[in-house]
Amino acid sequence: MKLTPAVQKILSHYESDNPGTKANLARILMQGRLGGTGKLVILPVDQGFEHGPARSFAPNPPAYDPHYHFELAIEAGLNAYAAPLGMIEAGAGTYAGQIPTILKVNSSNSLAKAKDQAITGSVGDALRLGCSAIGFTIYPGSEYAFEMMQEIRELAEEAKSVGLAVVIWSYPRGEALSKEGETAMDICAYAAHMAALLGAHIIKVKPPTDFLEQPEAKKIYEKERIDIASAAARIRHVVQACFNGRRIVVFSGGAAKGEEGIFEEARAIRDGGGNGSIIGRNTFQRPRGEALKLLDGLIKIYQSKD
Amino acid sequence: MKLTPAVQKILSHYESDNPGTKANLARILMQGRLGGTGKLVILPVDQGFEHGPARSFAPNPPAYDPHYHFELAIEAGLNAYAAPLGMIEAGAGTYAGQIPTILKVNSSNSLAKAKDQAITGSVGDALRLGCSAIGFTIYPGSEYAFEMMQEIRELAEEAKSVGLAVVIWSYPRGEALSKEGETAMDICAYAAHMAALLGAHIIKVKPPTDFLEQPEAKKIYEKERIDIASAAARIRHVVQACFNGRRIVVFSGGAAKGEEGIFEEARAIRDGGGNGSIIGRNTFQRPRGEALKLLDGLIKIYQSKD
Amino acid sequence: MKLTPAVQKILSHYESDNPGTKANLARILMQGRLGGTGKLVILPVDQGFEHGPARSFAPNPPAYDPHYHFELAIEAGLNAYAAPLGMIEAGAGTYAGQIPTILKVNSSNSLAKAKDQAITGSVGDALRLGCSAIGFTIYPGSEYAFEMMQEIRELAEEAKSVGLAVVIWSYPRGEALSKEGETAMDICAYAAHMAALLGAHIIKVKPPTDFLEQPEAKKIYEKERIDIASAAARIRHVVQACFNGRRIVVFSGGAAKGEEGIFEEARAIRDGGGNGSIIGRNTFQRPRGEALKLLDGLIKIYQSKD
Amino acid sequence: MKLTPAVQKILSHYESDNPGTKANLARILMQGRLGGTGKLVILPVDQGFEHGPARSFAPNPPAYDPHYHFELAIEAGLNAYAAPLGMIEAGAGTYAGQIPTILKVNSSNSLAKAKDQAITGSVGDALRLGCSAIGFTIYPGSEYAFEMMQEIRELAEEAKSVGLAVVIWSYPRGEALSKEGETAMDICAYAAHMAALLGAHIIKVKPPTDFLEQPEAKKIYEKERIDIASAAARIRHVVQACFNGRRIVVFSGGAAKGEEGIFEEARAIRDGGGNGSIIGRNTFQRPRGEALKLLDGLIKIYQSKD
Amino acid sequence: MKLTPAVQKILSHYESDNPGTKANLARILMQGRLGGTGKLVILPVDQGFEHGPARSFAPNPPAYDPHYHFELAIEAGLNAYAAPLGMIEAGAGTYAGQIPTILKVNSSNSLAKAKDQAITGSVGDALRLGCSAIGFTIYPGSEYAFEMMQEIRELAEEAKSVGLAVVIWSYPRGEALSKEGETAMDICAYAAHMAALLGAHIIKVKPPTDFLEQPEAKKIYEKERIDIASAAARIRHVVQACFNGRRIVVFSGGAAKGEEGIFEEARAIRDGGGNGSIIGRNTFQRPRGEALKLLDGLIKIYQSKD
Repeated sequence: MKLTPAVQKILSHYESDNPGTKANLARILMQGRLGGTGKLVILPVDQGFEHGPARSFAPNPPAYDPHYHFELAIEAGLNAYAAPLGMIEAGAGTYAGQIPTILKVNSSNSLAKAKDQAITGSVGDALRLGCSAIGFTIYPGSEYAFEMMQEIRELAEEAKSVGLAVVIWSYPRGEALSKEGETAMDICAYAAHMAALLGAHIIKVKPPTDFLEQPEAKKIYEKERIDIASAAARIRHVVQACFNGRRIVVFSGGAAKGEEGIFEEARAIRDGGGNGSIIGRNTFQRPRGEALKLLDGLIKIYQSKD
Repeated sequence: MKLTPAVQKILSHYESDNPGTKANLARILMQGRLGGTGKLVILPVDQGFEHGPARSFAPNPPAYDPHYHFELAIEAGLNAYAAPLGMIEAGAGTYAGQIPTILKVNSSNSLAKAKDQAITGSVGDALRLGCSAIGFTIYPGSEYAFEMMQEIRELAEEAKSVGLAVVIWSYPRGEALSKEGETAMDICAYAAHMAALLGAHIIKVKPPTDFLEQPEAKKIYEKERIDIASAAARIRHVVQACFNGRRIVVFSGGAAKGEEGIFEEARAIRDGGGNGSIIGRNTFQRPRGEALKLLDGLIKIYQSKD
Repeated sequence: MKLTPAVQKILSHYESDNPGTKANLARILMQGRLGGTGKLVILPVDQGFEHGPARSFAPNPPAYDPHYHFELAIEAGLNAYAAPLGMIEAGAGTYAGQIPTILKVNSSNSLAKAKDQAITGSVGDALRLGCSAIGFTIYPGSEYAFEMMQEIRELAEEAKSVGLAVVIWSYPRGEALSKEGETAMDICAYAAHMAALLGAHIIKVKPPTDFLEQPEAKKIYEKERIDIASAAARIRHVVQACFNGRRIVVFSGGAAKGEEGIFEEARAIRDGGGNGSIIGRNTFQRPRGEALKLLDGLIKIYQSKD
Repeated sequence: MKLTPAVQKILSHYESDNPGTKANLARILMQGRLGGTGKLVILPVDQGFEHGPARSFAPNPPAYDPHYHFELAIEAGLNAYAAPLGMIEAGAGTYAGQIPTILKVNSSNSLAKAKDQAITGSVGDALRLGCSAIGFTIYPGSEYAFEMMQEIRELAEEAKSVGLAVVIWSYPRGEALSKEGETAMDICAYAAHMAALLGAHIIKVKPPTDFLEQPEAKKIYEKERIDIASAAARIRHVVQACFNGRRIVVFSGGAAKGEEGIFEEARAIRDGGGNGSIIGRNTFQRPRGEALKLLDGLIKIYQSKD
Repeated sequence: MKLTPAVQKILSHYESDNPGTKANLARILMQGRLGGTGKLVILPVDQGFEHGPARSFAPNPPAYDPHYHFELAIEAGLNAYAAPLGMIEAGAGTYAGQIPTILKVNSSNSLAKAKDQAITGSVGDALRLGCSAIGFTIYPGSEYAFEMMQEIRELAEEAKSVGLAVVIWSYPRGEALSKEGETAMDICAYAAHMAALLGAHIIKVKPPTDFLEQPEAKKIYEKERIDIASAAARIRHVVQACFNGRRIVVFSGGAAKGEEGIFEEARAIRDGGGNGSIIGRNTFQRPRGEALKLLDGLIKIYQSKD
């Protein structure tokens, strides 16, 4: 499969990576209905770990079965499927070669109080399961942030050396931050930038609000008149924070919400130059038909210019 | 020995495992009087570590001898015998090849206050002692939960690479939970699901009550009208949480109790689609004859349809 | 040297050990005046680390010299000599092949407050110094107990793999225990059992009193009418806790005391089926002649039937 | 390229280093407009990690692009460019062989409270990215100082063994120090000396004030009449603390300030015998033209005698 | 160079060491004006790390240069020179083969509050720099004492395996001790004994006072009438605590003081059977001529009988 110019341009930004990693990035970017456009939609299913099985799957019981998610991602024509170890192990054989997978190698759960995650997968696991990338969450602002950064540093070095790509979920939280600050414009851009500095190939953050958390940052935003008025402008600023567009950045959908809310967010991501969406609960908690319809709408947004 | 269709179907769910691990799972599933049915009864003897020798063995003094338990498991026609290092070392030579063994590689004791366990065995130990699996306890909800998850992640990766199976005892406890919550329906299903996500081949949990611990979960159970009224319905929900039946799940008998209580529990496990029982104190603390009679009754329940 | 039936029977209990470890156990059991009887007396000299040199050696100044202890153990016809790294290094060349040595690989000191020990020797040290075993102390009941168990687990696995034997000193202490509880019957049996479960070949505990520490244990001792009235009965119960006699268990003499007190203790150990004594301060703090006389008396007790 | 006598003399001070490390030091010292003079100006861009992208790059938006800094350093004729992993990865291919790079292998951020840094790069990363050196920050006076020293010790040993140079940023801070003390004369000289003792090839400190923090040190400074009156005298004392000039020492420009302030500082560094400047925010936050003009002025100061 | 009988006797005490380590001990014992006598004077220069450069070197500015100390030790005819990594690296090439060096592999500093040290050098460093030994400080009585003991255990095992000697600085301090207790007779002898037990070849302690810190020890000193009245008697007791003279023990000079005080201390060390002095600040803080005169006087004391 010949790479499109859009994908070639993106790959050219990863100038320090070996061909193995570039091939895995290409696999993700060339997959599905958005294949070749430089845009991407990823299905993540780590909610079972984060919130428990009933809260995740009872609204749509077929989703208790790990095969369901592989099939949903394939049928919807998505770019990749991301999940923790057990979920991937339970389907990696059946769906081998049909959809790129991202092994989420750390995980939290709602019984834990510490703003930290447990390492629950390895680069070796990702290789034996045929994954294209590892995924890792950091919590900038947490007292465990340095430790988490050191963990992904080590895992990322190993992953890159064996030709895997690295996806970092950068979710600010912790004593240093107010609740509103967790999605503040300055904090979100900072979180994305740190993920880029840590060597991520793909960065995942939440769409920022127009709140500004840090006083020193606020001064600069005001002095330099950084445009953060619209959702698209805020996405554009995050893209800038990701090495001025040299790194792929995708945005999570967050809590379950209406179809129109999701589409509006996607249009802002597209208009701001973001690379796409990573959308879990809003899809697999809907009946399969509805989910496919929603994903179809989402993909069409990324396929269009406006 | 040709595998039965029931066992073949179970093995097909472990699609990411190497033939070594599949063979060890098959050894456990094809052993004893339930061999080939897809059901299993396991004898665990870690109570000496957990509560001390007198509380464990004084009610039936022959049980002080490690050979006693190997013989009990073999004579009763069970599927496997699980115990800590010293107990296995003391009989592994004599009973080699007669019953699959599971090396319990972490252990707690009643002199310790921390809701944690010490690692007391290794994958290397399991191999040199001819074991089919390693067993490991996690305490979801404990402040040590992340650490325990990381320990089993590492041990499990090593175990799988050398063809061993992995059994996870998932026992919720800790500051995050009320006493009642430790066996609550939502928590038990969550604990089982986390064990599955961590890559367990066999999951061991306690039979849940109909209590619901987490308010966010309670809302979903009520909204989605999840059936948790009967013991069998609750087992069925746990099975669902174990990748919709793609993982073997067994239930512990808990504190010593009457024969009828045990049988009733087993019928619920069977009717709910659980794979069987892991039963320790209720057997080895009874005189040998009584224990064999009890186990015979238990096995007959799993052999029958109702 | 042909093994006696008594020693052959003991070795048969170590059915999972390699010939190297069995040979080292045999070396200890066949050494000295008790060689071949299945009984043993060991000289431990770790008091210099525990209490300082003056408190240990000033009562008998020749004992400042490490060679003194090698010679005392050899001349008295003991089974083995146990000491920390420096003490063994200072005599291992001169006395090579004359007495089995046990390298004590962790050590405490009276300037430390933590109920823990520092690791002060390795399996590699034991090998280069020609030792037959490593020795390690655990403090069940201490907040460091899990960590200590993990340390000896790792060291024991390594020691067994290179043909060394493993001796565990199991000394309960810590916040979980009353002062009286440290030598309570239930706690002592529990401590011995945990050492056995951790894979010790030789277990060292203090002779228990008839106090019972844990309420749940007390109930069982009373209900099951476990005989703990006499010192010999208590030893017998400890032997039972050591896999019903499948593991060698020796008892320490404790604080300096009169000759008759030591002999009385030894008779109880013998009558209760214990394997012998590990006796330090009571020997090397006496003038050499007196120490030899005392050890002669002790050995004669183990040689006789009553 | 033949080394100049000035560079040869400097290299002769690194008498324990292998030819690989000497070659990398030579590469840095022979590069750019100060090449061969023994003086050097380095561009560091770790502010994105330390203060976030907007505070770092919004004043001069082209600086969001990692290529901008490589080009600035090359065009200005600097000696080296230092940055964290992601920044180097994003340009190392394009600018390979055009400017020596220093991989900053630990990083802090303004969301963290601990006076510590996370390790965010490795010696392996530095090698694969073609860097000449690794850079590492220590915080003498912090409760994490010992740990940071141990980290750089290990990294430095590895770096030296593969022919890389080691740059230590020594920034005193922590409970042991007053705010004024962080840049005090005694503390700065001490911080520089510790970096030298830790084996740094290039030491980076802030220019000291004439404040004296530690009473015991103050006594000596007064008794021995150490000249710390002028900025140049203070630089001279720092050079003395760096093995009497046997180690390269460069000074940071600190917070953004006027051109004349920067030039004055540089003259003091030159007059005191320091090796040069490491200047970040004061350059890349200015428009490119202004930055080049500033750097031209700076370089001319180091080229001239007064 | 043929070994003298005095040195041969000392070496015979290191009966478990390999020829490499014995050769390095011999190099130290055969070096300089005391070469062959079994006595030794060592120059340690770790004060720069401990107290900062100005407090260490301003009284005698040529001492800022690392070469100064190599030359001082060589010209004075001392046995060895001990210093941290950077100091050795800065002169190891120039003075290779001219004086045995001891790499101090851990270091404290006066900005740190913890009674601990950072590891700042390795066995690999010692080998590549041609050192004869590694040096390590332990703080018995500190909350970090167990950790420090474990660090030197590991380093010492590695050092011995590659033929290096091991020097332990044993300096009691911490919550367990009163200020007076840090140099108390019982504590000093205990500290020396622990260093010996940890496997040190050369032990360095401070000369003890006649204070007794621990009540249990005091009882024994009084009961056994241990002679601690004179400085020489106290040295003799320390020698006894070092395996009755089987280990080399040297004493530090402590804080700067008058020439006569130093000579008096040396006579006591000699008369008590100690092996010599390790003297830093009292030499390098004096002008070179005075230092040489002082060291000449010191050496003459060790050369004479009284």
